[in-house]
Formats: sequence, structure tokens, C-alpha cells
Amino acid sequence: MNAEIIAVGSELLLGQIVNTNARFLSQQLAGLGIDVFFHTVVGDNANRLESAIEIAEQRASIIIFTGGLGPTKDDLTKETIARHLGKRLVMDEAALSGIELFFKRTNRQMTENNRKQALVIEGSRVLPNDHGMAPGMVLKKGQHVYMLLPGPPKELEPMFLQYGSKVLSAEVESNHKIVSRVLRFFGIGESALETAIIDLIDNQSNPTIAPLAGDGEVTLRLTAKHTDEAVALSMLDEAEDKIKQRAGEFLYGYNNSSLLEELTKVLKKKRLTITAAESLTGGLFQQEITSISGASSIFKGGVVCYANEIKQQVVQVKQETLEKYGAVSEQCAQELAENAARIFGTDIGISFTGVAGPDPLEGKPVGTVYIGMSIKGRPTVVEKITLGGPREANRIRTVKYGCYFLIKRLQESQNT
Amino acid sequence: MNAEIIAVGSELLLGQIVNTNARFLSQQLAGLGIDVFFHTVVGDNANRLESAIEIAEQRASIIIFTGGLGPTKDDLTKETIARHLGKRLVMDEAALSGIELFFKRTNRQMTENNRKQALVIEGSRVLPNDHGMAPGMVLKKGQHVYMLLPGPPKELEPMFLQYGSKVLSAEVESNHKIVSRVLRFFGIGESALETAIIDLIDNQSNPTIAPLAGDGEVTLRLTAKHTDEAVALSMLDEAEDKIKQRAGEFLYGYNNSSLLEELTKVLKKKRLTITAAESLTGGLFQQEITSISGASSIFKGGVVCYANEIKQQVVQVKQETLEKYGAVSEQCAQELAENAARIFGTDIGISFTGVAGPDPLEGKPVGTVYIGMSIKGRPTVVEKITLGGPREANRIRTVKYGCYFLIKRLQESQNT
Repeated sequence: MNAEIIAVGSELLLGQIVNTNARFLSQQLAGLGIDVFFHTVVGDNANRLESAIEIAEQRASIIIFTGGLGPTKDDLTKETIARHLGKRLVMDEAALSGIELFFKRTNRQMTENNRKQALVIEGSRVLPNDHGMAPGMVLKKGQHVYMLLPGPPKELEPMFLQYGSKVLSAEVESNHKIVSRVLRFFGIGESALETAIIDLIDNQSNPTIAPLAGDGEVTLRLTAKHTDEAVALSMLDEAEDKIKQRAGEFLYGYNNSSLLEELTKVLKKKRLTITAAESLTGGLFQQEITSISGASSIFKGGVVCYANEIKQQVVQVKQETLEKYGAVSEQCAQELAENAARIFGTDIGISFTGVAGPDPLEGKPVGTVYIGMSIKGRPTVVEKITLGGPREANRIRTVKYGCYFLIKRLQESQNT
Repeated sequence: MNAEIIAVGSELLLGQIVNTNARFLSQQLAGLGIDVFFHTVVGDNANRLESAIEIAEQRASIIIFTGGLGPTKDDLTKETIARHLGKRLVMDEAALSGIELFFKRTNRQMTENNRKQALVIEGSRVLPNDHGMAPGMVLKKGQHVYMLLPGPPKELEPMFLQYGSKVLSAEVESNHKIVSRVLRFFGIGESALETAIIDLIDNQSNPTIAPLAGDGEVTLRLTAKHTDEAVALSMLDEAEDKIKQRAGEFLYGYNNSSLLEELTKVLKKKRLTITAAESLTGGLFQQEITSISGASSIFKGGVVCYANEIKQQVVQVKQETLEKYGAVSEQCAQELAENAARIFGTDIGISFTGVAGPDPLEGKPVGTVYIGMSIKGRPTVVEKITLGGPREANRIRTVKYGCYFLIKRLQESQNT
């Protein structure tokens, strides 16, 4: 059982966008134990698409199409597949109501070509689109499974995770169960983590251990196969235990979690509220914490204090502190964290100040960062880190470090 | 004359990396007037690579390979192509000296497998690698041109720009230039825009007009071909003018611009400073504005006022306003925008308040959003929008709407 991913869209062949869908689906299919042998990209051209389908049918049992399900004339994926398989397109009433509702809710006029999005290939199983209008679909014919997914990653990814992967698991699991678990690490580099566990990676094929790095984090994906799911799960537990013995202190979460989600969990559990005074990070910490549904029980608000005059006037940092130590200093980070907690009336105040670049500031090099943490009833702590990436990457990592330090600190108190 | 790009590497099929080389080369080939009809990705497997070569020979005259030129055992691109074409591999002395020099310069021990990188297909033209060890190569056989490039983008990109593109330009006999331009629209849906210009899309093939939608925006890519680049550019101008007559009010920028960049440009030009009071958007507007290098001349800071108590205590919204109209109201948006501008001492205050979901708030449905804009010397304006997406998408669109409204308002003053 192996798969080919066919992306349909001239914008890919013109280099207007990158084929990130192929990457996402490849990772997902690997997790399901399905080998991917080819990716193909073809333009909005029915004849070339049909030739790509014919080639894929020769070499893959599962063919996943991305893109070309939209309302416009150059969207022709389902039309071409339907014709190729000798099937008709039929109106899916559920999808049509969804589209009509979308236009009603947003007070927009529904144009006629939007109805086209609700057409599906007859006999296919419809995959609902919870984040857009065009539904996906899956159908089987002969030895092949055909899956059609929409092009925008924000629609494709949740659709595959919610609906598509289950259909494919069912195809695979007739023989054996495949279970996987992602371990998430922070504060250790990919090569350091790999060096610590290289013998485990090399000496076992079930479960497999696959490292992946990105945005300052490293993940290990463990994948076990067994006819009995309970056995496969215990194989994962065993491998995880071995890894924890080597690098357990850097493990912070599992699967699709994030440092911010873990921090949110800890705060909710301890019924603590938090605020932030953000200079370097410009609101990123607050934007991320409020992106989690239900944030209002732990977060009431905070301040972005980009300029020194705002640090002084709004967050009440002493003029003396700014003159003597500068804005990028332990002292400033401490006052920002403490004052923010006081002004916003929260249990915890966190502050981020540093040199974003591209130029040094106050004689301090790009990448110098201070994170202040004021926790009610405890002395304020300031952590200094030094980052080497470009501007935006440094801001993202700074927020992650802030979450990581705070989680560790709050867990410490739990243990004492 | 058309091309196919074959990327070789199992890491692509496992989803460990994204195929950015295909994007880069597609953009470059479009610039040279060479159509790309297919991208293929194949793993480190000689048989499957050879089958991909055979397929590409049926449908393309130029075949560009990326990756698989390195020193390890799974690098087999040139070996497979050589065997397929009945050619031998020969040592390229210039490449070998380069590799030896590289190890000398970095004080590292050269291992035997590194010599393998200096092997090239006999009769090929060698493309020097100025940023790594494995050389590229080009050879012609029959009707086909085969170009082999290294996988790492930092080696591939300069090699193609410096050496590869010249070889291909020489192949392009017709010698026509292809120029393209992306028009960026906001405030109009993809299908509505297409409906407005459908006759232009249908009735002309040079320039072509290709719509693409994503994140609440729609873009049109115009692509023109002509032997004279100046003529091709004036063809783009002409098509753009026709489109502007239909939907010019929604056009906000070109190519890789964004609404936030356009807003930043307008503010800098008019020497205006801005602050924000963000409830719904939780800091997203401020995070984005500070992600642009040099933001400090227009943005000093702002506030995230997620809870009503912060709106009242920190941003000084009247208790009466919150009691009578609620936080999601025109009145609250107005006070937030005006008070933020006063507290942070800026020319402009923008506020975002609304119902993020998943549940309704104050009896107002999910997606109800008010954006307040206070501009010095002008009456405050509040815009109401209704969004239908999920939580995170609504926040992103809200910030885009805020930028869009503000740009329009600031441009109005320019015209009067």
C-alpha cells in the first residue's frame, strides 16, 4: 500500500506558492505507515492532469489530489477525475447548505459559480470542510483509493486530520495497527538530541524514531506497528521511557501540543492569572495566549511597550533604570514584569525586552534578550538568553523560552 | 520548449523538508520564457528515479534534477542518469581541487567518499559550485537537455543564477521574455472578482490572468510574453488598467506586499504614529506591525484589553458604556480608539473588539466585530463587520480589515 500526492495548480508551476501540502500529507502518511513514492505537480490543464492520473494509477494504490476544487473556471480537479472514472458530478445538499449559510452569515451575495463547489463525484464519501466552502471527497474504484482535498492549507490540514486520516487508517489497518506519538523537546538542539539517542534510533525499526527540528523545537515521532493495538502502545511507552532517561528534562509535551498550551494548562490548574509587558516581542506572547479558546480565565490583558517612553509612562519603569542600565537589561525586565502584574492586577507578570535587530541597541548585540518573571509571593527572576537567528525567528523563540522558563518555575513550586 | 523539475530525495517524501527548489526554479524558468508543466519528487531509489526520467522524457524537452549529488551512498542522481544515457562517470579535476581546497580551508579531514562528488557525467558541461562541494552539470542528448543541480538551496540558487540560467537562455531560441505581476485585492471574494472580470480572463491568452485566493485576500497574476520586454510590460499595464476599471477600489498592492506593509508605508509617508487597543485580536495587530523592521518610527506601544476590567481600568472606557452597550459595541470601540491614542500619545488609535467564539457574547453572534479608528483632527469612525470563519481566521481577517479601512481613510484625506 503506497501513495502518490498530486497537487493541481498552475500557481505552483509558476513558483507563486510552495507545495507545503505535499509536505504536510507526507508527514501524515508516514505516521499512518503509508509509503509515499512520488509527488507530482500539474497545472490547471485537464489533459495533463488526466495523464498524471494515469501514471499515478500505474505506481500507487492511494492517490491524493490537492487543489482545484474552488469555484472558478480553472478549478477542474473533480471534473477531470469524474470523467476519467466515468462518473457524474452530483449536488451535495449538505455542502450546498453550508455554502449558502456562509454567505448568509457574512452578509455577502452568493454568486452562481459558488454552487459549483457543492458538486461531488457520485458515489464518493464527502469530507466536510469546516474552514471553507469546497468539500473534499474519497472514492474507491478497482484497486485504487482517490482522495480529493482543497488547496488552501488552512482547509486541507484540518480536513485531513479530522476526516481524511480516518478513512486511510481504515484502509491500512485491515492488517496491522499503526500507532504513533510525537515527543516535543525544547532547550536542546536537534544534533545534541540525536547524539544522545543515536543508538536507539539505529538499533530499532519497530517502533521507529524520527527526529524533526523547527522553530527552536525538536520533535521525535515514534511509530509502532502491531496486530494488537495495546501491544503497539506499550512498545511506544517502552521507547519513550528509554528516551526520557537520556533527555527527559527537555521533554515538555506530546503530539500537537505547544509550549503555550502547556503553560495555559499549568496556569488553569493552579488558577493563576498572567499579564505581559512586551517590548521585543511586540504582542506575540499575548496574541498567542489569546488564540487559545478559553484564555480569558487566565489572561485579562497586557501592554506592548515598544518605545522607552511607553515603558516609562505606561508601565512606570523608573527613568533612572532606563538611563543607568538601558531598556535591554535585567533591571528593566524586572520592573516591567513586576509593574505589569501590579497595573493589570494579576498573579504573574512576564516581560520580554531585547535587541531584535538588524542593528545593535544600547551597545548590546542583536539577539540579547531578557525575560522577567514576577510570580506573586516569590522573588522576581530574570533570565538572559542569547539568540542567533533572524528578527522574526528570535521573537518566536523568545516567547517559547518565556513559556518554557515559566512552566519549569511553576512546576518547581509544585514539587516543593 | 518546456521543462520538468525532478527533485530527488526521500526526505521530501517523508515530509521532512519542503520542495522550495521547485518554486525557485519555476520562477526562474518563467522569467526565461520556459513553461514548466510538471514537478516530480522521487526518493533515493534508482529504479523509481529511472522511471521518472523516462516519463519526463515523454513530456518535457528540458529536465532539471535537484539533489542526490552528495557524497553518501543514497546520493545516486548522476549515477542513474549516466546509466540511463549510456555514459560513464569521469573525474573532474577542477571540481576535485575545489573539494580538496574546501577541506584544507576549514581544517577538516577529507574522507574518501568526498572524492565521489567530483565525478561528472562524461561529455557534460560542469557548473561550478561556489557555495559547496558537488558541482552541477548540463548535457544534451537527442532532443533533451538534462541539468543536474545540488539539493541545498544555498548551493542550487547561486549556481543556477550564475551559470545555469545562461545555458538555458541560449537554448531558448524564440528568445521571448515573460514578465508577470501580481495584483492584490481585499474586500472582495474570489468568485465575485472573477465574475467582474470573467470576460477578460476568457478572452485573452497574452497576458494570462490567474486568480488565487487565501486568508481573505484574492490575487490576480498577470503574465505576458513578448520578444521585447518593454512591450510585455506595457501589455501588463494595459491589462491592469482594464481590471482596475472593474475592481480598482479593492486593489491595495502588488506582488509580495501585504495590507500591513501598505499601512506602514502610508503612516511613514505622512509621519503619523499609531497605537492599538486590542480586545478580540489579542495583540495580533501590534505583533504584526512590530514584525516589520523599522516599526519604531510609527509605533510606540499599545494595550491588549481582553477583559472588561482592563478596558475600564487601563483604557478608561466608561463603566456606563460597558453596562449600557457592552464591550462589543460601536460605543466601546470608539472610546477604546480615542483613549488609546490619548494614553499612548499618538496621532492614530485603532481598536478591535468583537466576538471571537466559539460562543456568542452579550447576545451578539460569533463573528460580530467593531473596528474603531481615531485620527487626530477628525471625527472617530467605527466600522462594523461580520465574519464567518473560525476563531483564528476571524482574528487575522479583522486585522486585515482594520489595515484596509485605515489605508482607505488616510488616502481619502490625501485626495481632499
